[in-house]
Amino acid sequence: MTKANNDRQFRPVAVPDVELGGFWGKWQDAVCNSTAETLLDRCVEAGMLKAVDVSQPSPGVVIPIQPWGGTTQMFWDSDLGKSIETIAYSLYRRPNPKLEARADEIIDMYEKLQDEDGYLNAWFQRVEPNRRWTNLRDHHELYCAGHLMEAAVAYYQATGKRKLLDIMCRYADYMIKIFGHGEGQISGYCGHEEVELALVKLARVTGEKKYLDLSKYFIDERGTEPHFFTAEASRDGRNVSEYHQKTYEYAQAHQPVRAQTKVVGHAVRAMYLYSGMADIATEYKDDSLTAALETLWDDLTTKQMYITGGIGPAASNEGFTDYYDLPNATAYAETCASVGLVFWASRMLGRGPDRRYADIMEQALYNGALPGLSTDGKTFFYDNPLESAGKHHRWKWHHCPCCPPNIARLVTSIGSYMYAVADNEIAVHLYGESTARLKLANGANVELEQVTNYPWEGAVAFTTRLERPARFALSLRIPDWAEGATLSINGTMLDLNANMQDGYIRIDREWADGDRVALYLPLSLRPQYANPKVRQDAGRVALMRGPLVYCVETTDNGEDLNAIVLPRELPAAETVVLKDLNDAVALDLQVEREETSNWGTPLYRKAPAERQVATARFVPYHLWDNRAPGEMLVWVQSDK
Amino acid sequence: MTKANNDRQFRPVAVPDVELGGFWGKWQDAVCNSTAETLLDRCVEAGMLKAVDVSQPSPGVVIPIQPWGGTTQMFWDSDLGKSIETIAYSLYRRPNPKLEARADEIIDMYEKLQDEDGYLNAWFQRVEPNRRWTNLRDHHELYCAGHLMEAAVAYYQATGKRKLLDIMCRYADYMIKIFGHGEGQISGYCGHEEVELALVKLARVTGEKKYLDLSKYFIDERGTEPHFFTAEASRDGRNVSEYHQKTYEYAQAHQPVRAQTKVVGHAVRAMYLYSGMADIATEYKDDSLTAALETLWDDLTTKQMYITGGIGPAASNEGFTDYYDLPNATAYAETCASVGLVFWASRMLGRGPDRRYADIMEQALYNGALPGLSTDGKTFFYDNPLESAGKHHRWKWHHCPCCPPNIARLVTSIGSYMYAVADNEIAVHLYGESTARLKLANGANVELEQVTNYPWEGAVAFTTRLERPARFALSLRIPDWAEGATLSINGTMLDLNANMQDGYIRIDREWADGDRVALYLPLSLRPQYANPKVRQDAGRVALMRGPLVYCVETTDNGEDLNAIVLPRELPAAETVVLKDLNDAVALDLQVEREETSNWGTPLYRKAPAERQVATARFVPYHLWDNRAPGEMLVWVQSDK
Repeated sequence: MTKANNDRQFRPVAVPDVELGGFWGKWQDAVCNSTAETLLDRCVEAGMLKAVDVSQPSPGVVIPIQPWGGTTQMFWDSDLGKSIETIAYSLYRRPNPKLEARADEIIDMYEKLQDEDGYLNAWFQRVEPNRRWTNLRDHHELYCAGHLMEAAVAYYQATGKRKLLDIMCRYADYMIKIFGHGEGQISGYCGHEEVELALVKLARVTGEKKYLDLSKYFIDERGTEPHFFTAEASRDGRNVSEYHQKTYEYAQAHQPVRAQTKVVGHAVRAMYLYSGMADIATEYKDDSLTAALETLWDDLTTKQMYITGGIGPAASNEGFTDYYDLPNATAYAETCASVGLVFWASRMLGRGPDRRYADIMEQALYNGALPGLSTDGKTFFYDNPLESAGKHHRWKWHHCPCCPPNIARLVTSIGSYMYAVADNEIAVHLYGESTARLKLANGANVELEQVTNYPWEGAVAFTTRLERPARFALSLRIPDWAEGATLSINGTMLDLNANMQDGYIRIDREWADGDRVALYLPLSLRPQYANPKVRQDAGRVALMRGPLVYCVETTDNGEDLNAIVLPRELPAAETVVLKDLNDAVALDLQVEREETSNWGTPLYRKAPAERQVATARFVPYHLWDNRAPGEMLVWVQSDK
Repeated sequence: MTKANNDRQFRPVAVPDVELGGFWGKWQDAVCNSTAETLLDRCVEAGMLKAVDVSQPSPGVVIPIQPWGGTTQMFWDSDLGKSIETIAYSLYRRPNPKLEARADEIIDMYEKLQDEDGYLNAWFQRVEPNRRWTNLRDHHELYCAGHLMEAAVAYYQATGKRKLLDIMCRYADYMIKIFGHGEGQISGYCGHEEVELALVKLARVTGEKKYLDLSKYFIDERGTEPHFFTAEASRDGRNVSEYHQKTYEYAQAHQPVRAQTKVVGHAVRAMYLYSGMADIATEYKDDSLTAALETLWDDLTTKQMYITGGIGPAASNEGFTDYYDLPNATAYAETCASVGLVFWASRMLGRGPDRRYADIMEQALYNGALPGLSTDGKTFFYDNPLESAGKHHRWKWHHCPCCPPNIARLVTSIGSYMYAVADNEIAVHLYGESTARLKLANGANVELEQVTNYPWEGAVAFTTRLERPARFALSLRIPDWAEGATLSINGTMLDLNANMQDGYIRIDREWADGDRVALYLPLSLRPQYANPKVRQDAGRVALMRGPLVYCVETTDNGEDLNAIVLPRELPAAETVVLKDLNDAVALDLQVEREETSNWGTPLYRKAPAERQVATARFVPYHLWDNRAPGEMLVWVQSDK
């Protein structure tokens, strides 16, 4: 396996350029049929429109100020932004004039709300007008702006309507004026990263490098001394030593970003920052940023990540704790954080395909992010424990509703994570039934058909559709877990080992219309053991099949799931397709079970429980709590 | 094993009547040398004397009102009460005129503070004088009174000084006037139980049945409908539906006490209530109370108790959650709750010796309560997890300082839990080097010498000291774990099985001066497995020796304690006496250890960790965190 140069610049394809079927098609349908409208309904119910609509009196403080000095009401712009972004993506798949009209109406409100100078923020224009730019550390102003920018780009690409894009360009132009090191400028950045990656999207869609420069400014400035947050607090009359989060690690602002080596603080913030850094690394070919990101990547994925790709185990800081501290029942593992990990991983592919990133992107996508949405698109998980005693269930909504639109926008834009293009190279990072329309630098228009029942089955067939033959490289990821994978081009087998580059098979050739690439990824059942430093997984094993983590649920297996013991030598699993669960492949395994019924009265005794042979059904973790409620467990007891 | 009648009334012997040596003598010395004075110093530093001293201005609200509508400052009387109680017990063992003078000074302050009508409460006399008796549910008024009553009884017994006793009798007399069903009386009870058991102590030392009747009134009244807390809240203009604890289960006031079958709510409250109920059951021979308590006892000890005798797993309600929910690393298991369990268990022995209660009393004493105090008597545990990743350490003090004086008063009064007398019967519930002076109904003065190195060794030798021969029954507990126990009287072996009654050997005979009873309790190492319904202990084993739970610590075993695997067939343990740890007996066992050093980079992999043979040292759990800080673990991996 050789290492490619990293001077290429892969950028995601636009969402409308990929049509999804199969596995992801169903999930997108759930969002189109249900989630997209639900998001907007919930925003309206929460009173968010009144906050934006200048024709109505300001609602004032609806959600009281919390001990940290702010309120989640300050993020309402971001909730609306992510909802509009989701609606935009949903409109690609399924036109919905009524929903589009509702989005248009909100965009009109934002147009009327925007200040002459370009500033735009419902809270700081209508509730605390004198507090603009006084507390970047806590008050999410640029974060809100970033989400509205992402919405603007998506809505423009979906509908061709420029209004929100123009609004956000005006706002960004205003930011360029007021942020910087010049006289009277603010030399700061947002406590909650987001605007960095959003400005890159804005730059890419408008072709305006100035937005990249602003993004890079925020990244370069972060964590430098004298510290902006300290100076700002002092100006604002706040006592720095009373900072509710104790350390700037919370916002990854404890050091300049290039000096950071440990993933710390609030998990979503960290992921959004690293995403922006990776974008800037790609756009500027910035090796110092890439080097820092590689270190952080290893830190996260080898010491701080659940097997689900869930990250940030603690509720207290919504983030990271100590190395190898991965409690299962109390895992916070916020849906947004895994969505953010998908964002980051996808952007680490900007300088060239590398399965080191794409494998984790897939793992976090299926097992960390996707559990956040129910199969019907109507209910949501915010935190994602790997064990439940039966009381953890999906929410209709959440007091901080960041996760529902985050997983919804990811699901509906998943095509742009599957395919990326750099000059005359196409990379396929993720597999799934789809058709991609890709434009290369040499002018070729490539339509790539992917036919597969992945992730349930391992056969993936690509067919090229070309007006005329064209030379380009097609890079296909061979996941690290896919032992025994095979690949043929028009029926001729390729030696994978000889053609592997960073875990991708790179096929650089003259392609013709109707060329066929047949990839086979064996989905054999894999036991997974954690590094013994992860105390919470000691003596336990998890099961994976392909990219999917499996779990046991009460509805299939009765109560007391911790009484299930998997043999050290895994027995063959019988696969069963569950019609009532999105045609998921379940796995039936012969296990042993500790008897709970004949234990007797005492809570503790000298003899361990007796065991009986039993069958246990494992189902994909991302689908848990979609049927009858009950216990759930990922890491089951392993025989020793 | 036969069952005895339960019409006897065993009452604890007075604390001064037992002198301790050996194991408990050392712990009492630590309290006398250090804790007793420390408690008072900390109370003074917190400003508690200013709150009581009417010659100084009221300190006002020092600790701000919390969201639950009160402040821990409202409990300051209880902190002072428990400190005075501890000082009193310490004075039995070691006269300390300076410390006694400090206690006298505080008692003088309370005398001056007391209202003419008898009312006494530093908060409601000096900070919120208009709020007296307006919120019994939350404001701990009777709870504070109860602790001052316990202090009064102890101080009177220790010094012969009646001042505090008289003060508290006046207060109790006042309570008798204002609580009841008569016109203008309050038909209520305290949200935090305590006064019930305190009134029994007051009654026993004064011989006044009226105090028993008031205690019984509070117990009988609890949880009846129409509900006092609801009526009180309504009178006080509070919204009942906004009760911070949601349910009256929090204070065991959801049902009349005789109808309660499940141990619920705040753990310390529950234990104090059941203690008072058991006292009243003994004093009134109340079979309906005893029946309820037996049900609650089984509920607690077979479904909700850590192997340490720790109870109340959750911090959120400082109490109980679901059956079999016993998380180890996050165990709340407050020291006070296990102290309370010792209280309750000892009182369940009031109607006759029964090892069902005494075994648990011993288990909770050594493993649930005693960890709360460091060997030097200077630092304290509030919560007692059974696993620590290395960050849980003893406190110098705590923002709610209920635990330090609670464990200190238990340690210094432990003699009264070891021996109890009913008419002409003596029961020995606990073993430990000591001399007890016991007065029987037939006028005999029995001095019972107990010579033993228990709990480190299992030989216990009793010698009677009598002026003249006397007939009485001596009941000695044979713990359920003591398989192969033997007993001889003046060298003649007794058939234990033929003489066992409720787990005690009852020797009813004419005793002469110098009679010797030799008891031998084999302290063999016992593996302990939890009911498989306890998911947190699945695949794990704990070790006990005699009454002691053992654990592993980093200081003996390095890091990554969860990598230790105990063989299914326990190897013989080598015992080692640790001079630097109170001469504790440690156990060295051959185990296997998962290798953490050669695992490699990935966090998860297909092959489990390799193992090596190693020696692990287990030390008594109650002594953990007395040496170099590090990880700790009770439930280690068990080979299957």
